Amino acid sequence: MLGRGIFLKNHFPIELSVANKEPIKPQIVATKTVARTRLFRIETVDLCFANGVETRYERLRSGRHGAVLIVPLLDRETVLLIREYAVGTERYELALPKGRVETGETLFAAANRELMEEVGYGASRLTYLTSLTVAPGYIEHTTHIIVAEKLYEERRPGDEPEEIGVMPWRLAELPALLAREDCTEARSIAALFMVKEKLSL
Amino acid sequence: MLGRGIFLKNHFPIELSVANKEPIKPQIVATKTVARTRLFRIETVDLCFANGVETRYERLRSGRHGAVLIVPLLDRETVLLIREYAVGTERYELALPKGRVETGETLFAAANRELMEEVGYGASRLTYLTSLTVAPGYIEHTTHIIVAEKLYEERRPGDEPEEIGVMPWRLAELPALLAREDCTEARSIAALFMVKEKLSL
Repeated sequence: MLGRGIFLKNHFPIELSVANKEPIKPQIVATKTVARTRLFRIETVDLCFANGVETRYERLRSGRHGAVLIVPLLDRETVLLIREYAVGTERYELALPKGRVETGETLFAAANRELMEEVGYGASRLTYLTSLTVAPGYIEHTTHIIVAEKLYEERRPGDEPEEIGVMPWRLAELPALLAREDCTEARSIAALFMVKEKLSL
Repeated sequence: MLGRGIFLKNHFPIELSVANKEPIKPQIVATKTVARTRLFRIETVDLCFANGVETRYERLRSGRHGAVLIVPLLDRETVLLIREYAVGTERYELALPKGRVETGETLFAAANRELMEEVGYGASRLTYLTSLTVAPGYIEHTTHIIVAEKLYEERRPGDEPEEIGVMPWRLAELPALLAREDCTEARSIAALFMVKEKLSL
């Protein structure tokens, strides 16, 4: 983090409102479910900010235990990606395997189950990397990133409507992956960069 | 991308179903809006896959023109982050500025407007970097990443309920940023890595 202005003032005209002091969280005055479908629940949230401003927001609740996204390392240099149809964007997307954490499941158990269902491997070593959000301004959802190593062959049946394509990719060739039109999913891209940096590739 | 198996077979027991051949997209049989609120529209989509399997999915439509996420470079080494309350996760998040593209607006006009509203700067140079999705499996939404350089002071009023904190951060100190609990938004993290790599920092 930069210092509080001295460096900046020397070469830039205005002082930035550096966000160093801890902000006071707004109060939730009321929440109300306004729509519910099989997969989604939408809520209005009435907030009162520290400055007295009151605003109504909408947010998507997941009502579940979050999700895991797995970085399966075939070896120290190679990650396994999957290609799966994404109905949100109506195209096949190349990304890391992921899925919901079921009730009663640990993050590692969920990661290993999804790995077996989507990629056809289990992992003897699972490591928690970080947790990411997709759009914290209006979605509750959190995804836990799990690195999977020491892979062994084991396939479990999932609920996928068609066979998932698995594609090994060298982490050193991340720029070529990002240049593809079918690799757009932000959590996967962030996780790949983090793992690449961690492994100093 | 790795070759088709020779390399892998030498040190791994099973052949991966390498997803090299172009998949056949499922057909959309029917779509139906099942919930609509001020911000969200949820749709069911009935799909028929190439193998004959029929499935019903739900997805979130944005019904808008996508969003922009701006990487404002104060200088070649320093990015400007904002800290804003996120009602989805109920905490302040440190991330890059972003916002919706309004009807009739170009991506660059939207990026510069959001930059002026949220950070208090305009940019003389705007460059398109890439487009990211947040959860393509069930959200239509696409975010276009715009790099903003040659900044000048200009603030425009936005619709924010309280003043947004602005925090300069050196790209070289990205690991320290990722170690913070309030920096979790995947699109911002992916964009910061990409810009850092592009600038060879």
